[in-house]
Amino acid sequence: MAALKGTMVIGQSGGPTAVINASLAGAVLEAKRHPEIEGIYGALDGILGVIHENMVDLGRERPEVIEGLRSTPSAILASCRYKLAAADYERILAVFRAHNVRYFLYIGGNDSMDTAHRLGRLAAEKKHRLVVMGIPKTVDNDLACTDHCPGYGSAARFTALSVRDAGRDSQAIGSVDSVKIIEIMGRNAGWLTAASALAREDPDDAPHLIYVPERPLNLARLLEDVQRAYDRRHYVVVAVCEGVKDESGNVLAESRLPIDVDAFGQGQRGGAADVLCQLIKSRLGLKARFDKAGTIQRVFMATASPVDVKEAALVGEMAMRHAVAGVTDRMVTLERIADDPYQCTTGLVELAKVANAERLLPDEFLSPSGNDVTAAFTAYARPLLGGPLPPYARLARYPVARRLAD
Amino acid sequence: MAALKGTMVIGQSGGPTAVINASLAGAVLEAKRHPEIEGIYGALDGILGVIHENMVDLGRERPEVIEGLRSTPSAILASCRYKLAAADYERILAVFRAHNVRYFLYIGGNDSMDTAHRLGRLAAEKKHRLVVMGIPKTVDNDLACTDHCPGYGSAARFTALSVRDAGRDSQAIGSVDSVKIIEIMGRNAGWLTAASALAREDPDDAPHLIYVPERPLNLARLLEDVQRAYDRRHYVVVAVCEGVKDESGNVLAESRLPIDVDAFGQGQRGGAADVLCQLIKSRLGLKARFDKAGTIQRVFMATASPVDVKEAALVGEMAMRHAVAGVTDRMVTLERIADDPYQCTTGLVELAKVANAERLLPDEFLSPSGNDVTAAFTAYARPLLGGPLPPYARLARYPVARRLAD
Repeated sequence: MAALKGTMVIGQSGGPTAVINASLAGAVLEAKRHPEIEGIYGALDGILGVIHENMVDLGRERPEVIEGLRSTPSAILASCRYKLAAADYERILAVFRAHNVRYFLYIGGNDSMDTAHRLGRLAAEKKHRLVVMGIPKTVDNDLACTDHCPGYGSAARFTALSVRDAGRDSQAIGSVDSVKIIEIMGRNAGWLTAASALAREDPDDAPHLIYVPERPLNLARLLEDVQRAYDRRHYVVVAVCEGVKDESGNVLAESRLPIDVDAFGQGQRGGAADVLCQLIKSRLGLKARFDKAGTIQRVFMATASPVDVKEAALVGEMAMRHAVAGVTDRMVTLERIADDPYQCTTGLVELAKVANAERLLPDEFLSPSGNDVTAAFTAYARPLLGGPLPPYARLARYPVARRLAD
Repeated sequence: MAALKGTMVIGQSGGPTAVINASLAGAVLEAKRHPEIEGIYGALDGILGVIHENMVDLGRERPEVIEGLRSTPSAILASCRYKLAAADYERILAVFRAHNVRYFLYIGGNDSMDTAHRLGRLAAEKKHRLVVMGIPKTVDNDLACTDHCPGYGSAARFTALSVRDAGRDSQAIGSVDSVKIIEIMGRNAGWLTAASALAREDPDDAPHLIYVPERPLNLARLLEDVQRAYDRRHYVVVAVCEGVKDESGNVLAESRLPIDVDAFGQGQRGGAADVLCQLIKSRLGLKARFDKAGTIQRVFMATASPVDVKEAALVGEMAMRHAVAGVTDRMVTLERIADDPYQCTTGLVELAKVANAERLLPDEFLSPSGNDVTAAFTAYARPLLGGPLPPYARLARYPVARRLAD
């Protein structure tokens, strides 16, 4: 079957990552290899760029700019969090017809896969031949049907490195700041928070406690955990996911102010670490402070995982390649072949299977204590960091020759 | 004059940095070159390690461990923030006598230089021949009499990189998070906050507003600044120092809870960004969030400045070299020879001149508007980053061929 001739539109959606532009580069470079692709358009602000016909001609960008996207974080086309209304779908189809758009590639999370799926279905109903493909992206690593998500490895590497360093900081200055809480991104899934454990080499290394949304938070037990960890080392580093919930399922810290609720009805999370600091100060009498790198975690390019950058470009490339071959209504997945040495290939899954599904940390990745991860998790996640973390010195701490009698 | 024979004790004090261990490596490696140095002891927990005779024999550590300190962040000997009492000085002298300590090197900020100076004076009074040398260290860059402080360049590089990336994040998702406040360390001096400007290449690049403690914060004007910046770009990135004060000199956010007040009577700063977020939401009706990398800023090793690492080792080495030559009661300084290409050498200054002094951002480094830095500041600070920041792609944004009539 001859490939469909026409314009390709690509958009980026949801929260940015360090590698979402690498996926864009992969798709655009692949598109350029196919003469059937008569135009390569980038939708600005995600799907809103299609609705408002606010698109740019990526085919005319200099090759070095497209190549440069591999090492440029965040979403260069800009992103959105917008829930499509019924009228929007008709409008999008009209724009697609006007520009002879035959390929729509959407880089995003589960909401974006839902959008792409619905668009494909509508186009079929309205007899506009359209290929839709999804390209996975999320630092949260919570998409179903894929071994992991591009964006996660880089955010995980930053998390592992920064918690290691913040842990060394606490070790040095524990006499001043006894408890440090590090708040890590994640709404319902604790994948990124779990990655805080990936730099640990020794049982005394930070983080000493890890709390994820998959396990209800019992505050009394948390205080006991912190006190016990403090008694052992005289400093404690806690990694906590911003989305942690108490035993009644209430999020520990979330703003439901109207201004903070998004198009999908989700409030703004964040503040869990601050809440815990106040609690630890007042209930345990220990000095506490928090670090919350916030959006820096998801886009910090200097420590991006090389594996992640490569895979992000690959899923973009494969989405375009499959699209030209006539595959539609699918998201490209990552399928792991082996942990060590790490090997991975791509696969395909129906968009509808990914849309609005959410993959949480499975039980085997969480310790029974509810405050740590397991060796199975580290075996899964370590290869995604894209290489070993640079080693740090450890003193043997030889005793000095003699002691002054006190 | 023959060099004094005896033991050298070295300690690390105050807040950790990415390169305070590089200074330790520099001093220890230099000490090993001098047969007069009969023992190389590391005081654990700063001066407390001397008081409690809690010291380790660094001379016995394997050479690769000492070398590894150059790439290991935070204070490996552990640090303290402790104000010496009168009795402590006598005790320290007794410990020094017992171990035949003739050299005391202290890596720290102005309080530490004061401690070292007093110890030297006491030893002279009590006829114990002792050489004391200070090695500068602080991410705050607020020590007097030195061009800059080891630790600053690395923290500045992390700040510049992370604000650039967080800015790209905001640019992509400004429709969701209109205002991002990035809280940066600094008590009275805004040097590190100012470094947030160092990655800017374009007037539209983040940060769009910079607030430092050297300029009183007028909240009404800040809200006007934010609204104006938002009107221009539809997203705003603000860098704010945790130590900013209002026009009455009150710190915007500081905890004075007894548990949060340290040995020097200083409360725990932090929270300025949260205060500003609430204000912006309620007064401007704009969505706002904050990033606060906290202690990660000061110790993040993956983006340490190569110039900073080298200079930190150099000041350690020079302190030891001068000490063996009989110089005492001095801190090693950094003296800049040229900006471009950057060249720097070391000098010496009396400890008393540095002790308890504080160098704030001078007027010529701050814009008259009170919300930005000047070109003079970037010329001063850029070389300290230790090399150019990796370039990012910028799209030309070519228009698409035609438009559908609305």
